[in-house]
Amino acid sequence: MVENPLHLLMNPKSIATVGAGNNPDKMGTFHAANLLKSGYQGKFYPVHPEEKIVLGHKAYASVSDLPEAPDLALLIVPAHQVASLLEAFGKIGTRRAIVITAGFREIGAEGKKLEEEVVNVAKKYGIRFVGPNCIGTINTRTLINTTVAPHANRLGRLGLASHSGTYIAQTFFHLNRRGIRYSRAISLGNEASITIVDALEYLGEDEDTKAIILYIEGIREGRRFIEVAQRITPHKPVLALYAGGSVAGAKAGMSHTGAMAGPDFLYDGIFRQAGIIRVQTIEELYGHGWALATQPPLRGSRLGIVTNSGGPGTSISHTANVGGLDIPTFTETLQEQIRKRIHGHAASANPVDLTFTLDKQALGAGLPEMVMKSDEVDCLIIHGVMDRNANVYPDADGNLDNSPPVEVSAEDRLFLSASVSLPGKYKKPMLMSSFFDRRDSFMAFYEDHDIPVYDVPEKAARAMADLLKYKKVRERKVATAAPMPPPSADAEKLVNAALKRGQKSLDEYEAKQILSAYGIPVTRERLATTEDEVVAAAREIGFPLALKGCSPDILHKTGKGLIRLGVAGEDETINGFRAIRNAADKAIPVLVQEMIPGSRELMMGMTRFPAFGPVLLFGLGGIFTEVLKDVAFRAAPLSLEEAEEMVYDIRAGKMLEEFRGIPAVDIAALADILQRLGFISMLHPGIAEMDLNPLIVSGSKPIVADALIIINGKQ
Amino acid sequence: MVENPLHLLMNPKSIATVGAGNNPDKMGTFHAANLLKSGYQGKFYPVHPEEKIVLGHKAYASVSDLPEAPDLALLIVPAHQVASLLEAFGKIGTRRAIVITAGFREIGAEGKKLEEEVVNVAKKYGIRFVGPNCIGTINTRTLINTTVAPHANRLGRLGLASHSGTYIAQTFFHLNRRGIRYSRAISLGNEASITIVDALEYLGEDEDTKAIILYIEGIREGRRFIEVAQRITPHKPVLALYAGGSVAGAKAGMSHTGAMAGPDFLYDGIFRQAGIIRVQTIEELYGHGWALATQPPLRGSRLGIVTNSGGPGTSISHTANVGGLDIPTFTETLQEQIRKRIHGHAASANPVDLTFTLDKQALGAGLPEMVMKSDEVDCLIIHGVMDRNANVYPDADGNLDNSPPVEVSAEDRLFLSASVSLPGKYKKPMLMSSFFDRRDSFMAFYEDHDIPVYDVPEKAARAMADLLKYKKVRERKVATAAPMPPPSADAEKLVNAALKRGQKSLDEYEAKQILSAYGIPVTRERLATTEDEVVAAAREIGFPLALKGCSPDILHKTGKGLIRLGVAGEDETINGFRAIRNAADKAIPVLVQEMIPGSRELMMGMTRFPAFGPVLLFGLGGIFTEVLKDVAFRAAPLSLEEAEEMVYDIRAGKMLEEFRGIPAVDIAALADILQRLGFISMLHPGIAEMDLNPLIVSGSKPIVADALIIINGKQ
Repeated sequence: MVENPLHLLMNPKSIATVGAGNNPDKMGTFHAANLLKSGYQGKFYPVHPEEKIVLGHKAYASVSDLPEAPDLALLIVPAHQVASLLEAFGKIGTRRAIVITAGFREIGAEGKKLEEEVVNVAKKYGIRFVGPNCIGTINTRTLINTTVAPHANRLGRLGLASHSGTYIAQTFFHLNRRGIRYSRAISLGNEASITIVDALEYLGEDEDTKAIILYIEGIREGRRFIEVAQRITPHKPVLALYAGGSVAGAKAGMSHTGAMAGPDFLYDGIFRQAGIIRVQTIEELYGHGWALATQPPLRGSRLGIVTNSGGPGTSISHTANVGGLDIPTFTETLQEQIRKRIHGHAASANPVDLTFTLDKQALGAGLPEMVMKSDEVDCLIIHGVMDRNANVYPDADGNLDNSPPVEVSAEDRLFLSASVSLPGKYKKPMLMSSFFDRRDSFMAFYEDHDIPVYDVPEKAARAMADLLKYKKVRERKVATAAPMPPPSADAEKLVNAALKRGQKSLDEYEAKQILSAYGIPVTRERLATTEDEVVAAAREIGFPLALKGCSPDILHKTGKGLIRLGVAGEDETINGFRAIRNAADKAIPVLVQEMIPGSRELMMGMTRFPAFGPVLLFGLGGIFTEVLKDVAFRAAPLSLEEAEEMVYDIRAGKMLEEFRGIPAVDIAALADILQRLGFISMLHPGIAEMDLNPLIVSGSKPIVADALIIINGKQ
Repeated sequence: MVENPLHLLMNPKSIATVGAGNNPDKMGTFHAANLLKSGYQGKFYPVHPEEKIVLGHKAYASVSDLPEAPDLALLIVPAHQVASLLEAFGKIGTRRAIVITAGFREIGAEGKKLEEEVVNVAKKYGIRFVGPNCIGTINTRTLINTTVAPHANRLGRLGLASHSGTYIAQTFFHLNRRGIRYSRAISLGNEASITIVDALEYLGEDEDTKAIILYIEGIREGRRFIEVAQRITPHKPVLALYAGGSVAGAKAGMSHTGAMAGPDFLYDGIFRQAGIIRVQTIEELYGHGWALATQPPLRGSRLGIVTNSGGPGTSISHTANVGGLDIPTFTETLQEQIRKRIHGHAASANPVDLTFTLDKQALGAGLPEMVMKSDEVDCLIIHGVMDRNANVYPDADGNLDNSPPVEVSAEDRLFLSASVSLPGKYKKPMLMSSFFDRRDSFMAFYEDHDIPVYDVPEKAARAMADLLKYKKVRERKVATAAPMPPPSADAEKLVNAALKRGQKSLDEYEAKQILSAYGIPVTRERLATTEDEVVAAAREIGFPLALKGCSPDILHKTGKGLIRLGVAGEDETINGFRAIRNAADKAIPVLVQEMIPGSRELMMGMTRFPAFGPVLLFGLGGIFTEVLKDVAFRAAPLSLEEAEEMVYDIRAGKMLEEFRGIPAVDIAALADILQRLGFISMLHPGIAEMDLNPLIVSGSKPIVADALIIINGKQ
């Protein structure tokens, strides 16, 4: 395996900067000053054409003057200088760089050309770089911070890879206020060399990183992204915030890093396939990531709640329940134990609600331990612990007290230490909810001991729900790759012949022949072009049957008089044949097809997305496809395990189960068809799109009743 | 109209306290001390059996010793003393009270009895009170704060009514940090006298209150709640957080205030009917409420974004788009204007992304005004304005600087003043997003000038999306009450006869007769009990037809051999008749019914919920009812406008439109049936539940093809 380029880039022993000087208003100076301030202990070589000393360090007039080849070059220079500078570094032997500079692909054609030049130079020298158009990187183990942002210089557990530099360099206040600390953070920028998939892979291997968070505006290496994530997610949680899927979002993404953005629902499916948990806000990305990075894995769905007030207890219960967690009523035995520690009006059933209390120990440690050590919960949320002496009160004008937070007293430290040790001791996650932040000394204590604190109750509940989601990811079946079958020569011949005839699509009969060639069950049917043929075919298929006009010119047949269903005899057959040709206004062939009995209609499809290749769709069929948009996506090819997981992704998943006396759908058969569809799309690049709609479920077996294949001649 | 009891309760000129002394660890003392500290200027009469002076004020040994009848009595005493104290206050002429004391209905039977005693005393003297088991009230105009929480003593615009005292008294830090200020806040507790509906009505009338927020664990006066809200919501926005709908949430609610909690989906429908915007977290309740309380009404859906970095711009676009807002590309004219103020790499299309800039004026005022004054947006979000000199940077250990925030400079104050005046000047809402809070002096300036600041970009976008929701509420059709028809004697006779026979339900034939009696279109059908009758009926109805076993013992017919569809001739009719009786194992009557052609199946229903009475349901019919749970609820009776709004509430609302050549469903006809169903449920309390499933849409007309009515004999 090739070593990930970020290992060296994130751990350089020597760094040269170009663009940093002594002018404090220049971006380059920001970066270099911050690097030095953050605690970097390695060698520092500023390159500057005029200055002799930069930020107190000896400066070098040019790259060729450097005393050694630095492990890393940090470039903050005008765009047109980057390629030649990289060349100079290449020549002296430097193999890693960070290009902060903007003004490349993201600004249009001219920038794109500049970017290509940079990439060519890098390739020539085997240089791998982050950027351009990025904000830099943070490593809290080596204290190397190449961004402009000051950051908590304490080793953290959360690894971030981001398409936006802002989410690395502008959120330090947000993170510090919540006690969240990075292990590593990487701003990818335009990904001209090192991509977000490289970063994901690196963070997967990094031992300091206990959970990975991704901010994504568009993935360029779709298949590799899924494969890398699938290797990581069974043993390390990955969360993602994807923005760019809506029309508006995609546009903003385009003007930002030039990233190729795909639609929202595709990413939904890709994340599920990869085992990645999707969140909806940057706050959730950090906050839920922090819960997963700090807490033991969740092993069940039972949540215990200890609170000092009812509203937050109710809010936590409600939100946790919506997120799939159970809030069990405690056994009488446990409740009796609890009641010994609480006063008469307090509730012991779960939530345990102490109501107004001055007994900080009971709320913070005594009752939580009682609940944690019981067999009755798998995790715990505590609301309302606080240092009542904290300077958290506003004055009469509503201003906050700005005096420093008080210290935790020695006495309180005892029970707080017991409290923060509970997750480790009982191997169960514990999260806190408080309306006070780390200006309350207790909250600071929890945060500094890696117990996440959320500023409203619902956020603690939602973070716990994502721990439950990760439990499901950890426990899911391992995907086993199925061997690709050999390509069908008949299928290829059909596609090529149609292309030669100038068709944009195959007719239903041809489409089903291709599906059939790969073992996908389709309706029995015959093509008829005369009245004699249609009668002969009808006798062979048997009544009742379906008649359909069949031509590559007809993409959608409904509502045009081209379909006759439930045709019951020979006269009706001949009449139907004539009527369809009349409706078509042309002597088109007519398909004589068996009628499949069945009350459930499903749909499958394939389309191709840039960066992801063939993508499969599964959903409800018939009119519901368009109306409900209840569909699931996955990138092809699919393992059977992935395909089975996919079919349960739709909201109407319950319809696949046994239902009012109708047998359950044969899930293995559905998965098998999806897998074969994936093979077809891999083996026949000339097929652009496929619609299998409906698949009628007959008894428990799905059978393709109609199919459309769009071709485009790509090889 | 009777004056709302809160007018006097929230504005007393004299307050007596019982339970407040000089012991600082007692709840009573907390309340009284806070009242005095908050700036209350009226008369203060502490009642105390021993102390002569309480908190520096002359104390009175008993209520009868008071020099006058105080406008308000504030009771923080043991539960068993409340009734006799209220009696004493009643005798001297006090007519308003706040009962903080807990230990009533919420703790079970004994407490419930105590509460009833209190209610009886109050009724005897015409006393209206808030509580028991509450935390008090806040009025920021008169500076009367009867809670334990210090609060910004500046008049605010947001009115809160809450079933949880915590959301009034424990969140002041949360609110202060965001610059959010109440006009009034009311903790309802057990609602033994004054209810959340009284509070809603009061806040609706209160001129200081520009938006109302409700925290609800369960409504007891369902119909009045809807009516009061419907009067308010066209001119003043109301938001609600409802917790208690999930199994877990309901349980927690029960143990908290003893409130009766109904299911989550019912409240969804009730809120829509009332014009109330539902939020999911307490942070959204405050934060979105503050946007609605401070900003001009939104008049369109076009959002402009001005940002100093791409990630947040993309996140805002994406989230706003999901929330229904458009992010239009600016015209070339506007972009040209914008480009004069931004550097080369910056984006002008929308989002306007300045990227790294030191031009605070451009980001905060220049570009925002350019965008606001154009005809191209209806609202604006700005991200990233900050006082670069603010003390918001953590030190090397990640600690925040605790020195006081710097002041805004005179120069910056100029452009900031221009910035905060934009919403008023252009009558368009403006929201801010920043990763810094009010420790950044610019953010404090915005907040102090009633421009909401959100701590991550997505929250600003979601708040704006709720302004769009309120636009729709403002613009919705006024509900016009339809006159209730007279009760049908035939229908009442049918119900009574069935009850007399000991039936728990009506059979399909009887059910449809009732529907038909109220003008609801049902299938043509005849009941047959012999082979001759069935043939005669078949001839009358015409083929194809449906045969159904018809008996009040059969609630659900599917999958039991009791239905024959598409019966095509007389032989088939007789065979079907026999087969159904065989399947039923009994000589039950058979319903001979016309077959309704149609590809869309809908469902309607009625059930009764405590506190809300009859509730109507609309959704997809057939097997989808159970599988998709795609249903909308409303409380009966319904205006036609409400009914029309209701049918579009389902996710599959698109299926009601013209679709693949199938005509649009006649919405007026659907609304008419829903209204009639409402009348039936009001006029016949003996009907417990109704299922109309399916309603088949034939062409554009819905016709009831099957119906079930459950009866329970209530009068």
